[in-house]
Amino acid sequence: MPEKPRILSAATIARTRLFHVEQVGLEFSNGTVVQYERLQASSHGAVLVVPLLEDDTVLLIREYAAGVHRYELALPKGLIEAGEDLLRAANRELMEEVGYAARDLRHLTSFTLAPGYLSHVTHVVFAKDLYPQRRPGDEPEEIEVVPWRLSQLPALLSREDCTEARSIAALYMVRDMLQTEARE
Amino acid sequence: MPEKPRILSAATIARTRLFHVEQVGLEFSNGTVVQYERLQASSHGAVLVVPLLEDDTVLLIREYAAGVHRYELALPKGLIEAGEDLLRAANRELMEEVGYAARDLRHLTSFTLAPGYLSHVTHVVFAKDLYPQRRPGDEPEEIEVVPWRLSQLPALLSREDCTEARSIAALYMVRDMLQTEARE
Repeated sequence: MPEKPRILSAATIARTRLFHVEQVGLEFSNGTVVQYERLQASSHGAVLVVPLLEDDTVLLIREYAAGVHRYELALPKGLIEAGEDLLRAANRELMEEVGYAARDLRHLTSFTLAPGYLSHVTHVVFAKDLYPQRRPGDEPEEIEVVPWRLSQLPALLSREDCTEARSIAALYMVRDMLQTEARE
Repeated sequence: MPEKPRILSAATIARTRLFHVEQVGLEFSNGTVVQYERLQASSHGAVLVVPLLEDDTVLLIREYAAGVHRYELALPKGLIEAGEDLLRAANRELMEEVGYAARDLRHLTSFTLAPGYLSHVTHVVFAKDLYPQRRPGDEPEEIEVVPWRLSQLPALLSREDCTEARSIAALYMVRDMLQTEARE
């Protein structure tokens, strides 16, 4: 594997409330020099929660997605707050968006979205032993909670409103993990 | 399902070579008014290719990812160009990044990355009946091609340099599809 490119320069070229665009000058190990743009994520990362209600049933949420201007069915998620560890953030998002808390939370893996130009990292947390517990969130309207059986994953993926790659990857991963555990 | 929020306003608040940030004023069906920011993607979308070399072997690439400043192992991908259909774009990216072309290309599904604030859509294309065919791309250094057996997916996902959610979701999807086809 070649050595990482050397960062020659890095400068903020645009900043809004949500987005921070950086221009980076890079020299690859073969001498090629390029200017790239990348988006800097919020420093603490995000969590995505796979809440298991029963053996084969996970809880999805249906929420308005401004980027694509439609309602999307996906796993609950949100940003980690300053000073919050990722399991605590996952449990908070679960209480705010789904109305459950979990006695058992486990960090499974961490995903990137588009590592070529986004620094964003999303930590996937598997949540089980759920009990009803609601915490007020900052959502503009009530979120609909949709239980879905993992054995019906193909039907979910054939829907036009279930497209988010992080949720899809996490659902496959948990389904495989539960199948492996059941065989052992 | 509630009616979609009404878009009250939409204005560009930052634009760089790669990124276009919009501020959107929205009124939800319950009367709540909010201001959101979203990133507008390039108009033609992107393709992600799952190239099947043999029955159980796909071709990954290892490429520098500026967003996270490390080399990442993932499926080949790229933007669709103006006037190009998505299967042609997939075959072009395959020739440029992997050094193969495909006689059989099939659109499987389309993913979003973070639909809450990105409009980006990535079309997943399954490519088989491959033959060696290289086309020069615009990469700053040679891309390493890494064959990987789908039966070894768990080992891939346990690596620290394979994190991109779109690639992971697409690999699970193709593995399941090939298993189903093999049973029929």
